[in-house]
Amino acid sequence: MSRHVLCVFGANLALLGKREPDVYGDVTLDRIRKAIEGRARRRGVRVSFSVSNHEGELVDALGRALGSVDGILINPGAFTHTSVALRDALLAVNVPTVEVHLSNIHAREEFRRRSYVADVATGVVTGLGARGVLLAFEALIDELEGKPFPDEPTEERN
Amino acid sequence: MSRHVLCVFGANLALLGKREPDVYGDVTLDRIRKAIEGRARRRGVRVSFSVSNHEGELVDALGRALGSVDGILINPGAFTHTSVALRDALLAVNVPTVEVHLSNIHAREEFRRRSYVADVATGVVTGLGARGVLLAFEALIDELEGKPFPDEPTEERN
Amino acid sequence: MSRHVLCVFGANLALLGKREPDVYGDVTLDRIRKAIEGRARRRGVRVSFSVSNHEGELVDALGRALGSVDGILINPGAFTHTSVALRDALLAVNVPTVEVHLSNIHAREEFRRRSYVADVATGVVTGLGARGVLLAFEALIDELEGKPFPDEPTEERN
Amino acid sequence: MSRHVLCVFGANLALLGKREPDVYGDVTLDRIRKAIEGRARRRGVRVSFSVSNHEGELVDALGRALGSVDGILINPGAFTHTSVALRDALLAVNVPTVEVHLSNIHAREEFRRRSYVADVATGVVTGLGARGVLLAFEALIDELEGKPFPDEPTEERN
Amino acid sequence: MSRHVLCVFGANLALLGKREPDVYGDVTLDRIRKAIEGRARRRGVRVSFSVSNHEGELVDALGRALGSVDGILINPGAFTHTSVALRDALLAVNVPTVEVHLSNIHAREEFRRRSYVADVATGVVTGLGARGVLLAFEALIDELEGKPFPDEPTEERN
Amino acid sequence: MSRHVLCVFGANLALLGKREPDVYGDVTLDRIRKAIEGRARRRGVRVSFSVSNHEGELVDALGRALGSVDGILINPGAFTHTSVALRDALLAVNVPTVEVHLSNIHAREEFRRRSYVADVATGVVTGLGARGVLLAFEALIDELEGKPFPDEPTEERN
Amino acid sequence: MSRHVLCVFGANLALLGKREPDVYGDVTLDRIRKAIEGRARRRGVRVSFSVSNHEGELVDALGRALGSVDGILINPGAFTHTSVALRDALLAVNVPTVEVHLSNIHAREEFRRRSYVADVATGVVTGLGARGVLLAFEALIDELEGKPFPDEPTEERN
Amino acid sequence: MSRHVLCVFGANLALLGKREPDVYGDVTLDRIRKAIEGRARRRGVRVSFSVSNHEGELVDALGRALGSVDGILINPGAFTHTSVALRDALLAVNVPTVEVHLSNIHAREEFRRRSYVADVATGVVTGLGARGVLLAFEALIDELEGKPFPDEPTEERN
Amino acid sequence: MSRHVLCVFGANLALLGKREPDVYGDVTLDRIRKAIEGRARRRGVRVSFSVSNHEGELVDALGRALGSVDGILINPGAFTHTSVALRDALLAVNVPTVEVHLSNIHAREEFRRRSYVADVATGVVTGLGARGVLLAFEALIDELEGKPFPDEPTEERN
Amino acid sequence: MSRHVLCVFGANLALLGKREPDVYGDVTLDRIRKAIEGRARRRGVRVSFSVSNHEGELVDALGRALGSVDGILINPGAFTHTSVALRDALLAVNVPTVEVHLSNIHAREEFRRRSYVADVATGVVTGLGARGVLLAFEALIDELEGKPFPDEPTEERN
Amino acid sequence: MSRHVLCVFGANLALLGKREPDVYGDVTLDRIRKAIEGRARRRGVRVSFSVSNHEGELVDALGRALGSVDGILINPGAFTHTSVALRDALLAVNVPTVEVHLSNIHAREEFRRRSYVADVATGVVTGLGARGVLLAFEALIDELEGKPFPDEPTEERN
Amino acid sequence: MSRHVLCVFGANLALLGKREPDVYGDVTLDRIRKAIEGRARRRGVRVSFSVSNHEGELVDALGRALGSVDGILINPGAFTHTSVALRDALLAVNVPTVEVHLSNIHAREEFRRRSYVADVATGVVTGLGARGVLLAFEALIDELEGKPFPDEPTEERN
Repeated sequence: MSRHVLCVFGANLALLGKREPDVYGDVTLDRIRKAIEGRARRRGVRVSFSVSNHEGELVDALGRALGSVDGILINPGAFTHTSVALRDALLAVNVPTVEVHLSNIHAREEFRRRSYVADVATGVVTGLGARGVLLAFEALIDELEGKPFPDEPTEERN
Repeated sequence: MSRHVLCVFGANLALLGKREPDVYGDVTLDRIRKAIEGRARRRGVRVSFSVSNHEGELVDALGRALGSVDGILINPGAFTHTSVALRDALLAVNVPTVEVHLSNIHAREEFRRRSYVADVATGVVTGLGARGVLLAFEALIDELEGKPFPDEPTEERN
Repeated sequence: MSRHVLCVFGANLALLGKREPDVYGDVTLDRIRKAIEGRARRRGVRVSFSVSNHEGELVDALGRALGSVDGILINPGAFTHTSVALRDALLAVNVPTVEVHLSNIHAREEFRRRSYVADVATGVVTGLGARGVLLAFEALIDELEGKPFPDEPTEERN
Repeated sequence: MSRHVLCVFGANLALLGKREPDVYGDVTLDRIRKAIEGRARRRGVRVSFSVSNHEGELVDALGRALGSVDGILINPGAFTHTSVALRDALLAVNVPTVEVHLSNIHAREEFRRRSYVADVATGVVTGLGARGVLLAFEALIDELEGKPFPDEPTEERN
Repeated sequence: MSRHVLCVFGANLALLGKREPDVYGDVTLDRIRKAIEGRARRRGVRVSFSVSNHEGELVDALGRALGSVDGILINPGAFTHTSVALRDALLAVNVPTVEVHLSNIHAREEFRRRSYVADVATGVVTGLGARGVLLAFEALIDELEGKPFPDEPTEERN
Repeated sequence: MSRHVLCVFGANLALLGKREPDVYGDVTLDRIRKAIEGRARRRGVRVSFSVSNHEGELVDALGRALGSVDGILINPGAFTHTSVALRDALLAVNVPTVEVHLSNIHAREEFRRRSYVADVATGVVTGLGARGVLLAFEALIDELEGKPFPDEPTEERN
Repeated sequence: MSRHVLCVFGANLALLGKREPDVYGDVTLDRIRKAIEGRARRRGVRVSFSVSNHEGELVDALGRALGSVDGILINPGAFTHTSVALRDALLAVNVPTVEVHLSNIHAREEFRRRSYVADVATGVVTGLGARGVLLAFEALIDELEGKPFPDEPTEERN
Repeated sequence: MSRHVLCVFGANLALLGKREPDVYGDVTLDRIRKAIEGRARRRGVRVSFSVSNHEGELVDALGRALGSVDGILINPGAFTHTSVALRDALLAVNVPTVEVHLSNIHAREEFRRRSYVADVATGVVTGLGARGVLLAFEALIDELEGKPFPDEPTEERN
Repeated sequence: MSRHVLCVFGANLALLGKREPDVYGDVTLDRIRKAIEGRARRRGVRVSFSVSNHEGELVDALGRALGSVDGILINPGAFTHTSVALRDALLAVNVPTVEVHLSNIHAREEFRRRSYVADVATGVVTGLGARGVLLAFEALIDELEGKPFPDEPTEERN
Repeated sequence: MSRHVLCVFGANLALLGKREPDVYGDVTLDRIRKAIEGRARRRGVRVSFSVSNHEGELVDALGRALGSVDGILINPGAFTHTSVALRDALLAVNVPTVEVHLSNIHAREEFRRRSYVADVATGVVTGLGARGVLLAFEALIDELEGKPFPDEPTEERN
Repeated sequence: MSRHVLCVFGANLALLGKREPDVYGDVTLDRIRKAIEGRARRRGVRVSFSVSNHEGELVDALGRALGSVDGILINPGAFTHTSVALRDALLAVNVPTVEVHLSNIHAREEFRRRSYVADVATGVVTGLGARGVLLAFEALIDELEGKPFPDEPTEERN
Repeated sequence: MSRHVLCVFGANLALLGKREPDVYGDVTLDRIRKAIEGRARRRGVRVSFSVSNHEGELVDALGRALGSVDGILINPGAFTHTSVALRDALLAVNVPTVEVHLSNIHAREEFRRRSYVADVATGVVTGLGARGVLLAFEALIDELEGKPFPDEPTEERN
């Protein structure tokens, strides 16, 4: 049976493309979603989405995912910095998880440097915009598939 | 003329594959380097490397790069947390820069949470292992080429 | 077309009048709402309300308001001190905003001194009770109308 | 008329028994609920429950409880460490309240040491697992009934 | 006998209108003073002013006011953040006091977030410019007069 | 052979009943002791006591207990916040331990929030007065006996 | 019946006169004790002493004093900075208390600035050497006797 | 020639007796001054006063005192916690100095625990009210006169 | 018309030469002033002085200078570390400003490391004694005159 | 007359060998003591021991040692991190002192990094187990004897 | 024999003129060096330079300078904020040292406020650009030559 | 084959004997080296040295040592407090390591209390001068050889 990845998008991410475009770019969440679905198809992975401004709905979704998903892609938005509930939900689900942020959270307000998610995730991608979400998705699938490091075919190097 | 990317690897990274493999994985820096070179060829980008345990050599390399490189991929290793000199050198070069870490620095000692580089970089990739370096490299080239977001070809969605 | 002001009331504010009256006074939210509506009529301003104990609903409301409101009056209640999501939503809407608190949050627990909203608001009114909400509303409309400072008619001063 | 106790269970507690059993044990919330109901029957107390991953729903429930409950048993889960809204709601209801945690929150991450609830509660029980919830419930009823300290019948001591 | 309000303006406020107009606006202190005097006349309140760059003169003025004023409007300017002496003088006079700042002190340097006055004041108005001073003055008189909340005349609401 | 529980009471606890009764209640330590002895008899547990204002005597007692007790009930009193020696002694004995405080230490001075014992204990009971000591004692014995969770007998629930 | 004052001298104070004389002076504790006894006789006050390097003995002594002393003079020595137990014992006894230090604790190591006693004492005398102990003793008796402020007999002032 | 002591009283101390009498008592500064003058006469010491709400005037007075006074008694009032200028002036004058506070500054707001004067003073007397000022004055003169410790005449002790 | 420089000397600087000469040297403020006047004459610059222990007088002087001076040389003395009012006054005047300290403030008490002036000044000179004041003055005039960097005449270097 | 070294062992050290052997090893204090006595004999040094879980007894012992010992070897155990009294006692005795810990206190809980003893000791040995105690003892004697650095006999080095 | 001054320029300073010219100006290090050499010639001082991005080379250079230089001019660049090694090397050389920064380090990132060099230097010059380096050099030579303060020739002042 | 120990000496240690002799003593690094070599010969251990002011060279040396050394003796000098790179290199080599400092780093500047090495080392020896280096070396070899604790031959003790 194919692997199942849950993609979680938190506070204010439904506004992508309309909200502070110099910070977040002009790609909408719908375009990101379609791109993820396309890649999922090509990689033979099942994908579902949970998008909400309600921390509780995301926690509900993660609770339902317990035992039925193989990996999580998560952009918690503002909840990154405040939600112990999401952290605990991720600990409960306990599968490989990649956190992603479109903006470079290290170059903004001090309080954005604290993440309740980062240390329970496998890895984090920040500041690479909407394309960074796709990268994170691919990386997560590679991780799930235990794909070996893609060495170059041997050749002379000079 | 083709774009030029400088890849900087700092303290202890030459030991990759031999050093704490449960933290850093077993891929050597040489394999990473060859993989980057392969991708650079395919994308038509010129690539050079600066690998050193000497903060000063990395700063020298960045100083020489001022005006001659278009982008920087950097894994400062331990210098991430201690080197204002590298930060200043990056500010001097002033081109798109992606910081990458093989391990998830958020899940380790508290002092690894402070980065002198992250807020002057374009983005950061952490915890995705050796493959994360390649992702970061691709993302940097996309950024340099101003590549549009890779939308899926339109089709019905169900 | 008339200006549109969104009034946002957050956690526990629906209990006004019933809850700790020595701290918050005995005016109910319904009376405050009617008084605001009256003033809005007199000033020719359209007004709508979002009242909820759910941070997510307030963020939803602000998301919908993006592009359709001219100003925001907000009493986030307890979310003042914990919600980066509300802050981000306000940054997204990006219109003049006045924050208001009925009690004097500076004279209570230490943690009430941190506000995630105050520095992205135009101004803040605290400790002036239910009347302070009306003051803040009037001040917001003055701000939206670019009303000049109300100088006294010139006369002799003695 | 019999006393009424509201039992509040917050973020991720619906997952009890399935989530990190080495931390939280294997007793489900349903078993805890039934045990509480049994004890409530024996002690002649009316009991109702509010279980949600939505902070807002718990605040709503507490708002409705204002004036109609005599005591509160609360396990806020992750909201313990982040929710000023729950704290304010408890202050509004203003009845004897016992906070309970199944795991020993003092022996986990540093941020779990801050509780927004503990100093407005009557008492706190932590680390005693699912049985600790029952203890807390009994203690709350004793408190509500003003039960005297259960001295031993006088006898010789040797 | 009519009520007496003392208006206190501290460090650098005599420069209003000339000083950093993008921060403080272009209304001079003289215009603010005349506007306050006009409103005081209309409300039947006696008003006097203490304007100085000398913390000591403001403390002197407050000391003389002990027992002879009914309310205080104060914009301590920079002394807000540094003067325990002003705080103590306000504690000595012990009448309703409203603190006001023309700029939004929450959106400036970190040290402007600490106020030695705010927690001994009745309320605070910040960021609403020169008009905010008038709002604060009106609010103070309402407070002194124990004015009831200005409900709208009853009417149908739809 | 029956289980052995050591009950440790630290600084100023011998004054219970005489000392700040609004904080600690009016039950004396002697009544608590007798009640514990009664319950111990009923549960078939051997119990001994170490009561002292001398940190050293408590550490001595714990040292002697190494290898001869099965569980510890401890109210360290003020030593909770200052004694690393007690913590180390508990680590040495290394048996299930329940910490208990009669008052709610979370609602008092800031320094009472730090406990050197809580994170090496099994669980903590605070703020439930003298009865809380008995609850803690019962919980400890349940823990030692590995008692299953006391489910209600199955019945229809409506 | 005459008033009773308990004089408490803590860690290392028995070494006075022999220990770091440039810090503590060369007056021995015995001379201080005799001087206090002399003043006590003259003022008709009963005086007793508790001198120990054992925090527990001082706490014991204060526990015994509960209900039988009218005032406390205390130099806790090093316990000033570390003993919550002494603080709690003073709170239990609950009589006027003057804390005294021979050296100026403000001009020494940073950690000597924290006192667990000062904020539960009536007043503090530091840095005035052995004579400061006598001053503190006299001040305590004045306080106990409710002695009026010693005005000068009226006379012309020039 | 007789010794000369300068007595410095800072912010709000001229209000003594009128200001927060439950904190500062009801003795006026004039009565304190007369009492000091009386004691100065009896001890053959010249005394002068500098009383001001202006930090600058106190600094001026201390500057003039450089080289002409032998000791300083200072109650800086609120300046204690904020004035580096007074500290520097005391360092300039460089004579024995006793700091005194009528209230117990350790039992009030956190910021009153920092003193810029205490560590450059000889000693500090706090919380002993107006009488504490006289004690401090006597102690200062004893210090200036190098008076030996006032041993009791030898006698039998029982 | 010639440029105008205002020289501001704050708390205790009038005592230069008499005050702690091992820290501040033995040059009086009068000698410094004359030396500045001499250099001003030679450079064709008008110079005026504001010397006071009163923060308010310095703020007054800066307020008067608004619009009429071209540069400011300031040694705020102790006000460096405590005066937001001076900082705000400098922001109001808004001309090139050089801060100077005779002693090395970095090698003294911790609190002298915080300056409210340094980050709104053009530059800072510390620890170079009275001569440092002259250097700072010359540097300020160079800055005002937009003087080019004084290159050496070209010559062979070996 | 031979030199005299006092060896001080504090809280829980009597349990060595029985307590957390993976942290502290399996050598008992008795074996350590005998080994020290053996070395003392060989080096011609008199040695005595103070072993106690009572901080007060150790302080008493140090007080008695004032003037009669030439050096101190001290393992304060848990008192290291909490006892200002021991620090003051060591300052009183004022002889060369070596602090020793069997475990590596830097690799354990954060609070074990603070030592009240280390900065008043001559040196510190940590983490070298029971053998480290002997090393520390030998080093102390070398220090007391002013032994020169043990150079190797000159020889050719290649 | 003439005095010898070592000029040390650290991380990234070789890039002066090319690097962030709005921060550091457009004067190259070569021009600064020539200007220093010119002034050294005129003042009869021998000067040498150590310029490196390698902390170790600067430490080497300072080590070689021990005993052979009379003064040091140092701009450590980024090492200012991170290098204890440079600090220790300066302590080893132990001659008058002036630290200089071209930019105003107080007006930049928070971490640039910490200097490991400033408190072991004689003085510091910041924010005065390349000319500030020359000022610092002249000031250092004045210091080395013990030059008296350059009083103006006496003349009438009006 | 004999064991191999790498001895690492960092910043400024080559200056031993010439640098601040009252802090570091007068023994040169050469004498220490020879003494170590002598002891190594006697214990049958191979020893090599890496001495450098360049952090990078020490990291290089440790990298080369990976897999070829059995133990490390390290005095990182100033790098102790700043080098994460050295820490990571030690983690990479992963053999028993003893850290040693000649001076007592606990009795110096605050920043010397933080060590990036101590918690990854086996043990630490500080403040025992050059002899401490030899002790550390012997202790390391004992550790490598798994030498039992050197009990005294049994004999009667009296």
